[in-house]
Amino acid sequence: MAIILYDLAGADPALRFSPFCWRTRLALAHKGLSVETRPWRFVDKAAIAFSGSEKVPVIVDGGRVVADSWAIAEYLEEAYPDRPSLFGGDVGRAHARFINAWADAALHPAILRLVVRDVWSVLDPGDQDYFRASREARLGATLERIVQDREARLGAVRQALEPLRLVLAASPWLGGEAPSYADHSVFGSLQWPRCVSRPDLLAGDDPVAAWRGRMLGLFDGLAERAAVA
Amino acid sequence: MAIILYDLAGADPALRFSPFCWRTRLALAHKGLSVETRPWRFVDKAAIAFSGSEKVPVIVDGGRVVADSWAIAEYLEEAYPDRPSLFGGDVGRAHARFINAWADAALHPAILRLVVRDVWSVLDPGDQDYFRASREARLGATLERIVQDREARLGAVRQALEPLRLVLAASPWLGGEAPSYADHSVFGSLQWPRCVSRPDLLAGDDPVAAWRGRMLGLFDGLAERAAVA
Repeated sequence: MAIILYDLAGADPALRFSPFCWRTRLALAHKGLSVETRPWRFVDKAAIAFSGSEKVPVIVDGGRVVADSWAIAEYLEEAYPDRPSLFGGDVGRAHARFINAWADAALHPAILRLVVRDVWSVLDPGDQDYFRASREARLGATLERIVQDREARLGAVRQALEPLRLVLAASPWLGGEAPSYADHSVFGSLQWPRCVSRPDLLAGDDPVAAWRGRMLGLFDGLAERAAVA
Repeated sequence: MAIILYDLAGADPALRFSPFCWRTRLALAHKGLSVETRPWRFVDKAAIAFSGSEKVPVIVDGGRVVADSWAIAEYLEEAYPDRPSLFGGDVGRAHARFINAWADAALHPAILRLVVRDVWSVLDPGDQDYFRASREARLGATLERIVQDREARLGAVRQALEPLRLVLAASPWLGGEAPSYADHSVFGSLQWPRCVSRPDLLAGDDPVAAWRGRMLGLFDGLAERAAVA
């Protein structure tokens, strides 16, 4: 039986851009598990109330419900120990938690300030008011004002990716010789602008762009085939 | 036979503050290896010319010479596989490389701008000219000018530590239930200002300060017993 994934969607239900849901999509594919996604909107709190969470990703695996991309990754590793490992052991998992936290705390907020207006523009009208109000309150300015200095902020985002470049100079994946959940975690943050925003965040000759290209090709091009706005 | 470590020293040869050498000190202690340190100064290029490196840490382990803190950690893990692991496997090592790169690319430059004048002040007079010229060229201002807005920059450094806090909310060490090389790597960056600079970089109630306290206590208080300026 396929695992059900509640997956953030735009006005076009095929448009799936959430960085956190992308982490889970790739983790499921990494484990070779089949998935049935359910498009979800920000205002659909009722649809996932059974999970105790107000946000996606939420998965339902038979009788088991798990919310939050990190908790889902830990659940999958534990529930499917015979499938390819996401973490490569306890220390690998602990270290991946840091990389995941770095994406959350350093990368995500910087990219949000570039793409927040583009995200708004692809949302269902029912979601747009919710998204504008909550993000403008959190960021302390209108969406239009936040993205006004996009060009100036772009350099800071590219600079924030520097640890990634240092790693990619030594190995093809954050997981070393093969992708790990650390790759999926950071990739989610780059798939997000790729799905909703133009022009590209990355310079063409950036090693991070080459790595993203490898990530896009994984699992028969799962991320590459994703709808873009 | 003890491993020899060339270790950056101040005017007081007992003062050892290099973040990179601290990584190696802790890695050696983690492996339970005895070490004989040789105080080294920036201008002593000739003393380590045999290593092919112009910087410390450099170790000599019998006939084997290894320079660069990351290369040393990989060497120790490979040469002493029966001692406590620094990485917990290949994926753990790959992930640790990211955390190490984050310390190098995000944390280190931010802390440098706070402590660069304090570092200068503890150096041997022979090193002070070299250090001032090289750092002023790299940072594009006088040491005194760089640290002028220390207070303003302090918030940015504390903010940069946020991924660490997210991890420490879930586990006591970056390595999970026990310290790993990731802990030693990041700790090195905090031991550096602790040895040369007042006041403390961290607020007393910061979970990062509690973790640093645990790090200071490891290996019979190896880092806690370090000389401070």
